[in-house]
Amino acid sequence: RTLRIGLIPGDGIGKEVIPAGRRLLEALPASLGLKFEFVNLRAGFETFEQTGAALPDETISVLKSDCDGALFGAVSSPSTAVKGYSSPIVALRKKLDLYANVRPVKSVRSPGAKQIDMVIVRENTEDLYVKEEKTYDTPEGKVAEAIKRISQRASSRIATMAGEIALRRQKIRAAGSPSIHTGPLVTITHKSNVLSQTDGLFRSTAREALAAGRFSSVTVEEQIVDSMVYKLFRQPEAYDVIVAPNLYGDILSDGAAALVGSLGLVPSANVGEGFAIGEPCHGSAPDIMGQGIANPIATLRSTALMLEFLNEEEAAALVYAAVDANLEEGKLLSPDLGGTAKTEEVVQDILRRL
Amino acid sequence: RTLRIGLIPGDGIGKEVIPAGRRLLEALPASLGLKFEFVNLRAGFETFEQTGAALPDETISVLKSDCDGALFGAVSSPSTAVKGYSSPIVALRKKLDLYANVRPVKSVRSPGAKQIDMVIVRENTEDLYVKEEKTYDTPEGKVAEAIKRISQRASSRIATMAGEIALRRQKIRAAGSPSIHTGPLVTITHKSNVLSQTDGLFRSTAREALAAGRFSSVTVEEQIVDSMVYKLFRQPEAYDVIVAPNLYGDILSDGAAALVGSLGLVPSANVGEGFAIGEPCHGSAPDIMGQGIANPIATLRSTALMLEFLNEEEAAALVYAAVDANLEEGKLLSPDLGGTAKTEEVVQDILRRL
Ligand SMILES: CC(C)[C@H](C(=O)O)[C@@H](O)C(=O)O
Ligand SMILES: CC(C)[C@H](C(=O)O)[C@@H](O)C(=O)O
Repeated sequence: RTLRIGLIPGDGIGKEVIPAGRRLLEALPASLGLKFEFVNLRAGFETFEQTGAALPDETISVLKSDCDGALFGAVSSPSTAVKGYSSPIVALRKKLDLYANVRPVKSVRSPGAKQIDMVIVRENTEDLYVKEEKTYDTPEGKVAEAIKRISQRASSRIATMAGEIALRRQKIRAAGSPSIHTGPLVTITHKSNVLSQTDGLFRSTAREALAAGRFSSVTVEEQIVDSMVYKLFRQPEAYDVIVAPNLYGDILSDGAAALVGSLGLVPSANVGEGFAIGEPCHGSAPDIMGQGIANPIATLRSTALMLEFLNEEEAAALVYAAVDANLEEGKLLSPDLGGTAKTEEVVQDILRRL
Repeated sequence: RTLRIGLIPGDGIGKEVIPAGRRLLEALPASLGLKFEFVNLRAGFETFEQTGAALPDETISVLKSDCDGALFGAVSSPSTAVKGYSSPIVALRKKLDLYANVRPVKSVRSPGAKQIDMVIVRENTEDLYVKEEKTYDTPEGKVAEAIKRISQRASSRIATMAGEIALRRQKIRAAGSPSIHTGPLVTITHKSNVLSQTDGLFRSTAREALAAGRFSSVTVEEQIVDSMVYKLFRQPEAYDVIVAPNLYGDILSDGAAALVGSLGLVPSANVGEGFAIGEPCHGSAPDIMGQGIANPIATLRSTALMLEFLNEEEAAALVYAAVDANLEEGKLLSPDLGGTAKTEEVVQDILRRL
């Protein structure tokens, strides 16, 4: 099978980590029977400054017509609003209907430390991210409003995705992979005690979707978002799959990343029907760009996650194991993890373990 | 000076901790020259079941016409939406225009552990808490929308409050109180990279308010909310005053509470012009209600915080010191802190230290 992969490095350290994702794909064992072709694509603030568009039409059309998946690095946000600029990743998620943002967060086994092994399944197309805003004047000054939109359709499919992921994780555990979890669990996060209609709809729709027969082995529970953040810090080991509307998912995944030591470890995949974009959870990190010290692990794991959602689970499993082995040995770690290794050294160490 | 204080225990452990707040006020040294009168008032889910109103008109009118301040316990949220019921504390904040929700989060000095000493200043009247929602049908199912409203007026006054609090804290430090902070700092939290108009307005208005001459000694910085949650977990010692729109403030304060070990330690005050309601950050905790083991500290500190905003700073300082002494000794701690003391024992220990 040949997979065509779009490469969108974006800005800052995106340019240092996306090449690592490409090399990983090229280094996969031939026995997997996978071939890759790559297409370089543009997006980001630099692209905006050069072309006037943060997400050129060409990037979208090539992804749609010519790619099986993609890797996206990171983009810089200008420090004050710039007319005409808006985040290309948010636009990409919506334009390609990549309705799920899947963010696994896992700690390295180390004695004494809390074990964390969860996946945050974030709705990726609506909520406040519809970006429908307006501003008006009143005698007391300016007032701005934004729409938070929650649909039954999007809530149902994201909850279904969360249920499927819980079942898949359970299957992998049953196959003998060591785990802190005993059974599949999905935790629905919302704020329906205040937003009874919008978050209320998310909650009831998710409940309904997860009541389907094929999820009968999945335990379903709920947490109000503020309480979820509290529990995330206090008992992170208790969570398996967390499903949340877009904005809560954004916030929760950064919180979970903090628990495992660095955003530089946390991958994500933007998943639609038959298409997936791997994307490290970290940003463009202007403070360290150009130094060759960015942690490539979030991107390598994102590359594996993309493969997983393109049904190449065996290839993905090899990558996860190689990354885990690097972390468990703990000898070649990038500075965000307290080490001194360069991006290049970490990449080489992981590739040789494949 | 005689202060009339409304007592609103609400549901669950609210009924166990609000009496402790009353006893604290009665136990303050006579040398302060303060007298207190109390009015018992109703609100909550039980009140809703009995009277059909979660927040009876009488409660509001007595608070408005007859009280200088109040203590609010906690209310239960029904586990599924109940027609006609909506959170009385959210309504109270809006009806009395208690525009600031002030939540100090402080760790006990203990060698080795991270030091945390921050105040979250949460806007308390708008954002998604305006609760303007609607639901409609589409060919693809139900869709619900909520309004997120941000005004220049509310953003300006909450940022000003944050600036004042930063200055006040600096004054107390300068008077010799030990501290981990070197100068006053306000961190503005928002998500203007996605919500350029609403959160953009919050950000620019807060910047403007904090650029006023009297805040010239205050350092002002910003964090995007997801990154703020990350930093909160990674370097909580770096933050002094955090100012945020309503919902982010709600989420951040639960996160900060987790860092100091228990929601049972974290107080809040809902503050308006010349009026303040002290309110523990924890909920009604149905799981432990009736056992006499609720941690009274959040309520005792909330009582002090109410006094502080009623300009009784000396009385407030006495209470903070008594609570700190109890925690530093660490002998009489409630179960949420790993101890075995009952509510009553903790209260007595703190009162005798006044
Ligand atoms: C950069 C920003 C628009 C984005 C988001 O809010 O989704 C980022 O925080 C993320 O989590 O991917
Ligand atoms: C109970 C709920 C409505 C409330 C809120 O969201 O403000 C609570 O979480 C709080 O923080 O006081």
